[in-house]
Amino acid sequence: MNSSMERPYVVGIDIGGTNTVFGIVDARGTIIASGAVKTQVYSTADEYVDEVCKSLLPLIIANGGVEKVKGIGIGAPNGNYYSGTIEFAPNLPWKGIIPLAAMFEERLGIPTALTNDANAAAVGEMTYGAARGMKEFIMITLGTGVGSGIVINGQVVYGHDGFAGELGHVIVRRDNGRLCGCGRHGCLETYCSATGVARTAREILAARTDASLLRNIPAESITSKDVYDAAVQGDKIAQEIFDFTGTILGQALADFIAFSSPEAIVLFGGLAKSGDYILKPIQKAINDNILKIYQGKTKLLVSELKDSDAAVLGASALAWELKDLKD
Amino acid sequence: MNSSMERPYVVGIDIGGTNTVFGIVDARGTIIASGAVKTQVYSTADEYVDEVCKSLLPLIIANGGVEKVKGIGIGAPNGNYYSGTIEFAPNLPWKGIIPLAAMFEERLGIPTALTNDANAAAVGEMTYGAARGMKEFIMITLGTGVGSGIVINGQVVYGHDGFAGELGHVIVRRDNGRLCGCGRHGCLETYCSATGVARTAREILAARTDASLLRNIPAESITSKDVYDAAVQGDKIAQEIFDFTGTILGQALADFIAFSSPEAIVLFGGLAKSGDYILKPIQKAINDNILKIYQGKTKLLVSELKDSDAAVLGASALAWELKDLKD
Repeated sequence: MNSSMERPYVVGIDIGGTNTVFGIVDARGTIIASGAVKTQVYSTADEYVDEVCKSLLPLIIANGGVEKVKGIGIGAPNGNYYSGTIEFAPNLPWKGIIPLAAMFEERLGIPTALTNDANAAAVGEMTYGAARGMKEFIMITLGTGVGSGIVINGQVVYGHDGFAGELGHVIVRRDNGRLCGCGRHGCLETYCSATGVARTAREILAARTDASLLRNIPAESITSKDVYDAAVQGDKIAQEIFDFTGTILGQALADFIAFSSPEAIVLFGGLAKSGDYILKPIQKAINDNILKIYQGKTKLLVSELKDSDAAVLGASALAWELKDLKD
Repeated sequence: MNSSMERPYVVGIDIGGTNTVFGIVDARGTIIASGAVKTQVYSTADEYVDEVCKSLLPLIIANGGVEKVKGIGIGAPNGNYYSGTIEFAPNLPWKGIIPLAAMFEERLGIPTALTNDANAAAVGEMTYGAARGMKEFIMITLGTGVGSGIVINGQVVYGHDGFAGELGHVIVRRDNGRLCGCGRHGCLETYCSATGVARTAREILAARTDASLLRNIPAESITSKDVYDAAVQGDKIAQEIFDFTGTILGQALADFIAFSSPEAIVLFGGLAKSGDYILKPIQKAINDNILKIYQGKTKLLVSELKDSDAAVLGASALAWELKDLKD
């Protein structure tokens, strides 16, 4: 934040399959202006970027103009930090390799960095949230899928190709594992995402006959939120679903700790907000499965960023480390 | 190697459960003098360090004296890079936390760094071997156990506590996994170490009745070398043992790639020298299990360091990055 006096703001853009949200953020992590556009309605990336700029530029001008903005950070599926491109993103309408960072730089004259949403979340947590001051932690995002951002030595791990940190696709069940959207079987995200929880609910309800509040909901429309609500009301099956989910996640986290021995694991997303229903079985499975040398050393934390702000804050945080374009 | 003109040598010390080997190494990775002492015969760490110094110092003096040595690097089980200590090493005779790096610095006046043997192997491979010029790779050592050294951004990953990178203890079999020396079940090293291979041989021979050259050896004394020799002679069961071992290792490596997306995985140790018998099933299991985004990107390499030299070279390589004690 060396030049934060002259350039006090950064812009965060979070590109989701449905919506794109963006905001202007100050050094304390306050979003001082924000907006959104639909992601899916633009058939070309050029039209899409034009539209985002058309909505974003007035906000920038109202807050002192382009010269007040240090940089733009973008969180996007399949984002490659090194090249600033998104590559073959299955949930976005534009095919192939899209040089998104360069497209924003050209239009706005502001240096732009891009990475995937989980890496952006990790940078956001390190800059404004639960991982402030930490140099070694792993961010796990529990949403529709399971994403991860790994920080080692104070830097996000991007790997040799810009795509490191896909811990949602570590295989946790080699035999009879659930089919994953990636085409393989047994990935962590098929069990520990919000959709994984709903899948577990349907499996348990179908395999058993004991009573559950969840039986009042058509099986195909059960969500992880329904499971949480039932658990809070004392529903045994709902609590068991969280135990099952947390145990698998905790077992996987114990292995991740053997990789980078982080100071903390930070959980983000709706599931992480389910309190002790999910945190207790996660912590128990970590304790039961961790190598003795790591026992009791790694903190299990929940994100401190507000759900609605986290994506924009995370993306924006990337931009603090950018150099000026002329440099 | 900035001051290699004035201080052209480093010392590498590899501490094993049975033997300690050490050598003086030049910038090209040539061992110009070496020696060894028994590790187990000294009841206190002080006596042990005294003895190593007594053997090492004449070699140093014969090669220009202490002022020609840039630093000492030590590879030791349970070595903590941050503190220069070995901590509760199960295979060493000295209990508790031993400040080994400081003990050498005091006696010889030479700056000393210490880490575990697999991390030292990774630094050795990066300095003198198959990973020269690489900034992102994972070293896997296949010996009595399975060790690992992870390099990200050109630096060994030590984690927040100095103990990162115990990939031999990632759980690869959650159900009915083999009991590991660490007290848990299903660790990678129970399958893919030299002892794991011998264990697989005994299991398969006991469970089946088909002929094998391995049946000529008493079951309890079969080694991974015996399995290799039988495989070379066309023994089907021996080849199957390598297939089984390589498949489990390749599956695990596919998960490791999802963590740090390395440019290469470098295998070291006797098993890694078994050529295509082990490399083919490893590569096949990587290909079959890897997330599409990483497909075909990470090279599978075998260490280029001579077995007998690798431990000393690896330890010595640590020392090139040390600062002078007065700094």
